[in-house]
Amino acid sequence: MTEEGARVSRRKLFGLAGAGVALAGAGAAAGVGFDRLGDGATAQASTSTVDFHGEHQAGIATSTQQNLHFAALDVTTTDVAELRQLLRTWTAAARRMTTGQEVVPNGAVGGAAEAPPGDTGEALDLPASELTLTIGFGPSLFDGRFGLAAKRPPQLVDLPAFPKDKLDPTRSGGDLCIQACANDPQVAVHAVRNLVRLGFGVTEVRWSQLGFGRSSSTSRAQATPRNLFGFKDGTNNIKSEDTDILRDQVWAQAGDGQAWMAGGTYLVARRIRMHIETWDRETLDGQEQIIGRTKGSGAALGQAGEFDTVDLNVGGAGGVPLIAEDAHIRLASHETLKGARILRRGYNFVDGSDGVGHLEAGLFFLAFNRDTRTQYVPMQQALSAKDAMMEYVQHTGSAHFAVPPGLTPTSDWGDGLFA
Amino acid sequence: MTEEGARVSRRKLFGLAGAGVALAGAGAAAGVGFDRLGDGATAQASTSTVDFHGEHQAGIATSTQQNLHFAALDVTTTDVAELRQLLRTWTAAARRMTTGQEVVPNGAVGGAAEAPPGDTGEALDLPASELTLTIGFGPSLFDGRFGLAAKRPPQLVDLPAFPKDKLDPTRSGGDLCIQACANDPQVAVHAVRNLVRLGFGVTEVRWSQLGFGRSSSTSRAQATPRNLFGFKDGTNNIKSEDTDILRDQVWAQAGDGQAWMAGGTYLVARRIRMHIETWDRETLDGQEQIIGRTKGSGAALGQAGEFDTVDLNVGGAGGVPLIAEDAHIRLASHETLKGARILRRGYNFVDGSDGVGHLEAGLFFLAFNRDTRTQYVPMQQALSAKDAMMEYVQHTGSAHFAVPPGLTPTSDWGDGLFA
Repeated sequence: MTEEGARVSRRKLFGLAGAGVALAGAGAAAGVGFDRLGDGATAQASTSTVDFHGEHQAGIATSTQQNLHFAALDVTTTDVAELRQLLRTWTAAARRMTTGQEVVPNGAVGGAAEAPPGDTGEALDLPASELTLTIGFGPSLFDGRFGLAAKRPPQLVDLPAFPKDKLDPTRSGGDLCIQACANDPQVAVHAVRNLVRLGFGVTEVRWSQLGFGRSSSTSRAQATPRNLFGFKDGTNNIKSEDTDILRDQVWAQAGDGQAWMAGGTYLVARRIRMHIETWDRETLDGQEQIIGRTKGSGAALGQAGEFDTVDLNVGGAGGVPLIAEDAHIRLASHETLKGARILRRGYNFVDGSDGVGHLEAGLFFLAFNRDTRTQYVPMQQALSAKDAMMEYVQHTGSAHFAVPPGLTPTSDWGDGLFA
Repeated sequence: MTEEGARVSRRKLFGLAGAGVALAGAGAAAGVGFDRLGDGATAQASTSTVDFHGEHQAGIATSTQQNLHFAALDVTTTDVAELRQLLRTWTAAARRMTTGQEVVPNGAVGGAAEAPPGDTGEALDLPASELTLTIGFGPSLFDGRFGLAAKRPPQLVDLPAFPKDKLDPTRSGGDLCIQACANDPQVAVHAVRNLVRLGFGVTEVRWSQLGFGRSSSTSRAQATPRNLFGFKDGTNNIKSEDTDILRDQVWAQAGDGQAWMAGGTYLVARRIRMHIETWDRETLDGQEQIIGRTKGSGAALGQAGEFDTVDLNVGGAGGVPLIAEDAHIRLASHETLKGARILRRGYNFVDGSDGVGHLEAGLFFLAFNRDTRTQYVPMQQALSAKDAMMEYVQHTGSAHFAVPPGLTPTSDWGDGLFA
């Protein structure tokens, strides 16, 4: 068979598969990404899909995947209609990619030879890998440019300056964000890249961050992973099974201010550089005092097992509390913070080196809460003022986003914002 | 049980396990990392270990793992004895970590409470994940500082400037390198971090690079992965099964110049930024002409299947060769390069964004060859001068290392260099 013959017949095959997707319509979203995978991979793909649709966006209370690609974007167009249309386009694209399909039918190799491919192709042959795509709107989107000022939720405050912040403006802010989580970094990167590509002329990347090792678990089915301080992180996190706590602490309710945000939440992203070399010179006792937990099992000081209830008042020798006044778990505890909790979903990162002989490593902190004013902000004020851990970390990036509610098979990410 | 009681008994337990390791001696290297894992994970760990010992270092012809952490280091001491000792220390540490053990016995939580932990702890509970650790010596190590000038292999040239290079000195060079590959990025990061930590006062990190998605396969048992151009990468790579080709093209032989390098090889590392946004505007036909392969199956132009033999002369319409004069696979072909081949082992990367609206993405190219002067250098001279792909890539980092031969259970990484 000549090359030309091989190409034509392969294109024809892909073309037919693409037509099948189009005919299946919304139903395809629940299926398997059959146009990205060979036959052998179908079984794997079908078990590794997270539903894109639901009351809330996926990627928040979803069991945390292994890998993250997070991108903050700025809107570059002044035409609000272009932004409106992009949110529709992105939704359709996300609906496909989260089921393991290419971003558009006939994507990487099935289109016209004389046109740029519709999909960038690096995720061909890879299953959905539990990909979730979650979108948010930053405070700056509600300035005068798009007539959205009246839609800004009161919870979406400009974050205050916290003590010891050392924020890099090129790692902070953004009109929009895309959070891609998957069990394969190539799948997460492919998804962000293709959404960015669809936004060409309308949005551009402001900053982007990769992460690994999910530093917080969000389900009781997951073992608690470790952050780069070597400690288990997320033992006391809100879990997907805690539906009452999620309702009270994470999901925006109808009476919260902006009705279009009901079922949504607010995302705080903080890039936290860890001075791991300094941390590594601290004694084991010192590290455990700073955290308030034992390093091995993750049990709170004074307790035996990781999930034993924390007792902030348990006394040590001479009646001094085992959990110090400036211990991280004391200051971050909902007992200390008038009941306020957050859902953490952070990832570890290493971004090369820092130019002075160290690894540029840390925690890309992602937290979801119902009202950042009464949850994240007072928590971070307490931590940044008093936390013994602050000697070993530095917040180098910061952003805040309103994360709209979940989608139906016929809605899109812009429906509430532009209703 | 009080906290203090819990801690003592746990320490005691870890202490006993650590003693077991010490008694087992070299035999422990072939076992399972029983002091890092709970009981449940033992089976998984035992099947995911790559032998650290052998004629050649692991991590070269080893089937490519999913994740990379690569670090280049500079030696900061002027005391050669400290460098000599560090290579011994690193070898012992690598012998342990590649079997899933902590970097030292009684590492993260088993040591004295008043001392810094011996292991940084973030890989506790994680299996070996096929971790390999591979070391190399850069040209600068053979300058006057350590009396090693006479040991410099002639193959370890200072790489020439190639046309269109745009090298960043903070991403180039290095006295030493550590290549950590594993199927879990946290395991690779943990290994590099702990070796770097052991080198405190003797070495410091010059630059470091994470990678994912292994852009080249090195075994016939692996499906060919895709790079961020969306093409299969490594179809025609040297594979671990090609023992004759490995001997001729990769492994240094006894008569090659420096006897201490026999069984070793030479590593070229190039950070290749891909202008993916520009690439994504190229037509499918254009992309396939530039590479010389079809995007879907990976077949060479004019062939039907990925592994069909490449025919650089097969004609298209009007007798014009299907594989263009400036196609990547023609210029990189051993037919064009007097038989010269290289073993590629690169990884994809995305390092955030570039500050002007794009993802900072590309390929971290790693290649091993027997003589860089006659293999990599002429290949890259041909590519940088003529390759149609050069319009879409830019080499932003470069380094070259002599990779010493493999180890026995009683040898160390410095034996040949300091013999």
